[in-house]
Amino acid sequence: MTDLQDILQQIRDFIQESVIPLEAQFLKAGFSAVRPQALTLRQQVKEMGLWAPHLPPEMGGLGLSLHEFAHLSEVLGTSPLGHWVFNCQAPDIGNMEILHLHGTAAQKERYLAPLVRGEIHSCFAMTEPEHAGSNPVWMSTTAVRDGGSYVINGHKWFTTAADGAAFAVVMAITDPEAARHRRASMFLVPTDTPGYEHVRRIPIMGEEGEDYLSHSELRFHDCRVPRSALLGQEGDGFVIAQQRLGPGRIHHTMRWIGISQRALEMMCQYAAQRELAPGEPLARKQTVQNWIAESQAEIQAARLLVLDAAAKIDARGSKAARVEISQIKFFVAGVLNRVLDRAIQVHGGYGLTDYTLLSFWFRHERGARIYDGPDEVHKSVVARHLLRPYGVRI
Amino acid sequence: MTDLQDILQQIRDFIQESVIPLEAQFLKAGFSAVRPQALTLRQQVKEMGLWAPHLPPEMGGLGLSLHEFAHLSEVLGTSPLGHWVFNCQAPDIGNMEILHLHGTAAQKERYLAPLVRGEIHSCFAMTEPEHAGSNPVWMSTTAVRDGGSYVINGHKWFTTAADGAAFAVVMAITDPEAARHRRASMFLVPTDTPGYEHVRRIPIMGEEGEDYLSHSELRFHDCRVPRSALLGQEGDGFVIAQQRLGPGRIHHTMRWIGISQRALEMMCQYAAQRELAPGEPLARKQTVQNWIAESQAEIQAARLLVLDAAAKIDARGSKAARVEISQIKFFVAGVLNRVLDRAIQVHGGYGLTDYTLLSFWFRHERGARIYDGPDEVHKSVVARHLLRPYGVRI
Amino acid sequence: MTDLQDILQQIRDFIQESVIPLEAQFLKAGFSAVRPQALTLRQQVKEMGLWAPHLPPEMGGLGLSLHEFAHLSEVLGTSPLGHWVFNCQAPDIGNMEILHLHGTAAQKERYLAPLVRGEIHSCFAMTEPEHAGSNPVWMSTTAVRDGGSYVINGHKWFTTAADGAAFAVVMAITDPEAARHRRASMFLVPTDTPGYEHVRRIPIMGEEGEDYLSHSELRFHDCRVPRSALLGQEGDGFVIAQQRLGPGRIHHTMRWIGISQRALEMMCQYAAQRELAPGEPLARKQTVQNWIAESQAEIQAARLLVLDAAAKIDARGSKAARVEISQIKFFVAGVLNRVLDRAIQVHGGYGLTDYTLLSFWFRHERGARIYDGPDEVHKSVVARHLLRPYGVRI
Amino acid sequence: MTDLQDILQQIRDFIQESVIPLEAQFLKAGFSAVRPQALTLRQQVKEMGLWAPHLPPEMGGLGLSLHEFAHLSEVLGTSPLGHWVFNCQAPDIGNMEILHLHGTAAQKERYLAPLVRGEIHSCFAMTEPEHAGSNPVWMSTTAVRDGGSYVINGHKWFTTAADGAAFAVVMAITDPEAARHRRASMFLVPTDTPGYEHVRRIPIMGEEGEDYLSHSELRFHDCRVPRSALLGQEGDGFVIAQQRLGPGRIHHTMRWIGISQRALEMMCQYAAQRELAPGEPLARKQTVQNWIAESQAEIQAARLLVLDAAAKIDARGSKAARVEISQIKFFVAGVLNRVLDRAIQVHGGYGLTDYTLLSFWFRHERGARIYDGPDEVHKSVVARHLLRPYGVRI
Repeated sequence: MTDLQDILQQIRDFIQESVIPLEAQFLKAGFSAVRPQALTLRQQVKEMGLWAPHLPPEMGGLGLSLHEFAHLSEVLGTSPLGHWVFNCQAPDIGNMEILHLHGTAAQKERYLAPLVRGEIHSCFAMTEPEHAGSNPVWMSTTAVRDGGSYVINGHKWFTTAADGAAFAVVMAITDPEAARHRRASMFLVPTDTPGYEHVRRIPIMGEEGEDYLSHSELRFHDCRVPRSALLGQEGDGFVIAQQRLGPGRIHHTMRWIGISQRALEMMCQYAAQRELAPGEPLARKQTVQNWIAESQAEIQAARLLVLDAAAKIDARGSKAARVEISQIKFFVAGVLNRVLDRAIQVHGGYGLTDYTLLSFWFRHERGARIYDGPDEVHKSVVARHLLRPYGVRI
Repeated sequence: MTDLQDILQQIRDFIQESVIPLEAQFLKAGFSAVRPQALTLRQQVKEMGLWAPHLPPEMGGLGLSLHEFAHLSEVLGTSPLGHWVFNCQAPDIGNMEILHLHGTAAQKERYLAPLVRGEIHSCFAMTEPEHAGSNPVWMSTTAVRDGGSYVINGHKWFTTAADGAAFAVVMAITDPEAARHRRASMFLVPTDTPGYEHVRRIPIMGEEGEDYLSHSELRFHDCRVPRSALLGQEGDGFVIAQQRLGPGRIHHTMRWIGISQRALEMMCQYAAQRELAPGEPLARKQTVQNWIAESQAEIQAARLLVLDAAAKIDARGSKAARVEISQIKFFVAGVLNRVLDRAIQVHGGYGLTDYTLLSFWFRHERGARIYDGPDEVHKSVVARHLLRPYGVRI
Repeated sequence: MTDLQDILQQIRDFIQESVIPLEAQFLKAGFSAVRPQALTLRQQVKEMGLWAPHLPPEMGGLGLSLHEFAHLSEVLGTSPLGHWVFNCQAPDIGNMEILHLHGTAAQKERYLAPLVRGEIHSCFAMTEPEHAGSNPVWMSTTAVRDGGSYVINGHKWFTTAADGAAFAVVMAITDPEAARHRRASMFLVPTDTPGYEHVRRIPIMGEEGEDYLSHSELRFHDCRVPRSALLGQEGDGFVIAQQRLGPGRIHHTMRWIGISQRALEMMCQYAAQRELAPGEPLARKQTVQNWIAESQAEIQAARLLVLDAAAKIDARGSKAARVEISQIKFFVAGVLNRVLDRAIQVHGGYGLTDYTLLSFWFRHERGARIYDGPDEVHKSVVARHLLRPYGVRI
Repeated sequence: MTDLQDILQQIRDFIQESVIPLEAQFLKAGFSAVRPQALTLRQQVKEMGLWAPHLPPEMGGLGLSLHEFAHLSEVLGTSPLGHWVFNCQAPDIGNMEILHLHGTAAQKERYLAPLVRGEIHSCFAMTEPEHAGSNPVWMSTTAVRDGGSYVINGHKWFTTAADGAAFAVVMAITDPEAARHRRASMFLVPTDTPGYEHVRRIPIMGEEGEDYLSHSELRFHDCRVPRSALLGQEGDGFVIAQQRLGPGRIHHTMRWIGISQRALEMMCQYAAQRELAPGEPLARKQTVQNWIAESQAEIQAARLLVLDAAAKIDARGSKAARVEISQIKFFVAGVLNRVLDRAIQVHGGYGLTDYTLLSFWFRHERGARIYDGPDEVHKSVVARHLLRPYGVRI
């Protein structure tokens, strides 16, 4: 644990000294405006030996358990640039895992290696505008076998980071007659494949974003890929997606805790410095004190809950930790949204401007209660599990 | 009341048939993109005899009581373009009142008349970045008498609609030694006055906005105005601002109810049509039903509360209705924020996009709990009043 | 309205001067301990001409509209003894209405007249332990016709005021094969009828209560009543129960508002007087101020919402006001529970004791969100109505 | 940890098989009705070697760390009789610690030994009706030195378990001129001392309770005790009280988690079995599922938060864990109150009766947000600590 504490402190310092100074420019002019400096930071991270920390040592990572990586993810999450600078941003982090487990040697060389090196980025195309994301087995995109190829047709959206991506991992129905969870397969589709159309970056909460901080609409028009584009076996799509989810939720929720923690610190700092009248700081107001205390308690509770889930996944796998995984998804999203709301209220008008990170997070993390399954779906999962011993099937 | 019902129905129909069709383009490309069509609508409103309905008949308005106008304000508020098309948008609506009551004949001819005709627009500069908006008697902008002029120096922000405004109504300290509520005065400052600087439209919740849908930072550098620029008497600034507040809060809160009502209808419509699985609409989910019912009850309660406050202002004036005015400010802002949050959750990912009004309102009406006094200040006002009979002074 | 204001003031004064002084003894020793004095008060109310104010003039009441009576009900509700002293306590108030509308001349003379005079009291037996109260058409108690009689068998509970009641109005299935809403009928069953068993007063939230402030379990063992015991026609049970509900909900919710208002006043008074340190009253705490202001706003909103529903029932009948009636049920119950919770928190340990009314109400009004249909059922009713225009049937 | 798991399983089984069966009678007739059987259970616990598990081995306990005992406390808390049967109920558990640390040899023999053996019980008299409990340094009870004695005068209430207690530990001012935290001292006062008056058991939330489940009002009239009655040094009262608080809060909060966990299980069980219509269990309702899932997440978060605080106290002492201790106090109390509220709502009318534990806990654990410092005080403690690094003193 000492090592981990050292690493965490190193990352904390680096975020503080090197990443946070880029934020003002990022907020003002977008990611592309800070990309050059951020690339320099990536180089420094490599030199520090902390690059892609989630990966096993043989792939150049730190070989951390999920429980250990969770601690890093919180620290990285305190800045919207943190994960990217360490090359462990979603969805690349998930795609690396998929390619590592299910890619062919050729795919690994051609796509995984440059992804790990940070030379390209990728996206993950699952959600479709016509179908509720909360029902992951219901989709219309199809991949039909035709000789040695698959021909993909369909419509996706909320494909994070498709802007500028070198390839997409695409979920498509290969057998509509199969059992519910065996209908879909996963394909690696280079974005220069004919028939792959990047329609647009979707304007979300006031901006289109760019690069890994954007979500796109895609269309597939007779998009032909070789059979080797198939990841895993035909029909494995849902299973592979599920495997990703456990660790993916730990990553997201710990990032949210990082955000919440930073927002709490901003709240304290602003309340201490902002005066309501000469010599009377906002922090003297009991309402503000209540918000600070409630946020602190909720964040610490959320942190422990996620770490506990991560430890369970490490010990017994994602399937055994299903309840814990659903539980953290809605619990932490709720904490995040409440803490951001309080931080904005403390900042008053200033908190509404794009001069602080609060507006950025308030807008883009409202989705935390929606993406990867809305709160309501996760609550049903938990309730179903708890009710089963009493003979109820829901 | 029959007449009022007729007018309301006419406006409802007009909003539905003529204003709402502009919204998609407005959301995509901003106000300037729909300005030409919106100007045409303004012409139609004039022809319908519903122009600037808040004004007394002698100024071309409908001569409505505040209670009656509140009903209109709700209907107009169902679209972000509604009030503008009828020329009763903030802050012009308030500035018309100030000029009507406190302007000289020359000011009325030169500024009020074209404002009423919709040829120019105006702004109201009170809030300063260096001082908490919740303390309205604490500001740094000064207006120093110098011969027949006042020389204004200072810094303002969150000056709504300064972008393109013909003039600003500016609050400035004229006597720092006076009693707290007599320190400030109000000035009419044409925006082409030397020393008036429009620094920037403040980026707020992801966008700068434009025209009346923007909020700017201003600076005054030895900005010299004639003594006739003074509105009312020296030292009247705070009193005039207070007069505006009562009706202003009715306008805002009824607009918020219009927004809430529209969001509720969107929630119902989307829940009815969106399927979770073939043939299973989202509306079947009890959680969604709970949100619909809670929103309906809260909106109706909020509506009655505001109408009750408006009737009290009509009958007894703003001062007598102080508690009611503070009460609606935080109560309705809370309802608005909760209803929008639920509506987004019902819409899922789609609700996060800028394809619906929900994101626009979610972002721009988060400020409802902050501007014109944060919730906490209004709660103190109410508590102070209720505790006074028990001998407590707070 | 002037008259109404006069009456209200008269009642307010009477409650203050004559009813509230009995409360301490009532809290300490129960209703029977104050019954003698309360009977004296009843005599005074008669002399003031305010007896049974809900009744039409020909029955000796004030001939008030529901909207008018709602105002009275709030004032009476500020004391747990208020309604009883004026003889308009549930369930007698509802039973008077049923007998007035559906009773035979003999029943009116024998039961209604002494009920109106306050010489006897009655109860209403509908809920059954074996069936969810939220499903009013599902019950097991049966009344089988046998010659000129009906023979009732069954099990009821939560029969309010059965303790000491002279008769019960009993819902029982007369035709299990009929359409859902025509299965049950209503009977007037004198409590001395053989086969009528008062099993026990149910211990609820720490006490059994007594008299009209208690809820009993009943059993019917071949309990034989004449055909004339039938109220209305066979199969009318559900319809008559529904008729009661509209006015009944107005009575309850206005009573809850009376409780909330009193709790708010207690909160203010205690906060003003209780010191945290010498010279520092609790009322200085911003958290307490928040609670006071929130309670004030919510109570006023709730009041207007109920009055609006009452006006709609007066104008268009209970059926047309179905949504409003469901809406107030859950909205006001929520306000009540929150206000009581805050009042207790302000009172600290003292608020937990039985020395104030807060514990009494906290315990006995937790049921407000349950009895007469739990919140969830009423929310469904509202949502169903709002979703219908969008083609959803739930 | 294996040992601990074994012990926990043993206790769980014992609670299930031997303690829970007494609850129905306890709810119906009070503690004295089950005392004889509970005494038998105490004997069994001794034979199992699990008696007074919180004590160090040399005193006959299990020598558990606080973190370990916390686990036990949760299991014991699932029944209101649990802690008593194992002789680790408040306030005896705290008094044992005080006597162990600060008692004289004579006091240990005369009072601690029989207390440990379960032959007597004790109480702790600190709170006074005239002073806010949230200000622990403000009290009026005095102990004046007079020769070799102290003469105590004063008024206490909410003295838990005074009913039948053999002795009281009493806080009294010995030096009103001393620094705030050195004014009070602690005394061991046998309840048969002349001048010690047990005024009454305070009726709380509908009942007086009895024995360790009661809270009394006491008066001290020139109550003379020898100097040896002093626990610790003169002026140590506050410090000793503070020492108790850390472990005491772990005990309470884990007990609350036990209650919450049991309520969640009751909720699941009842929802699974209760039908809304034939064949349609309540558990099918999404609202109920939401409550179950939210309760599960909150309870697990609360549990981890308390265990984390316990580990910190074990490692670094109560003072270092001050924030954590305040944090769990209000966080867990909130979870407890919400879970109980949901459990009652799921049980409907039945949940209001005294036939289940829910009413008992709903009434008696409302105080969780009040006793040992109300939420608001603990929030201030947390906020004060977090704001200090930013230069704010509150």
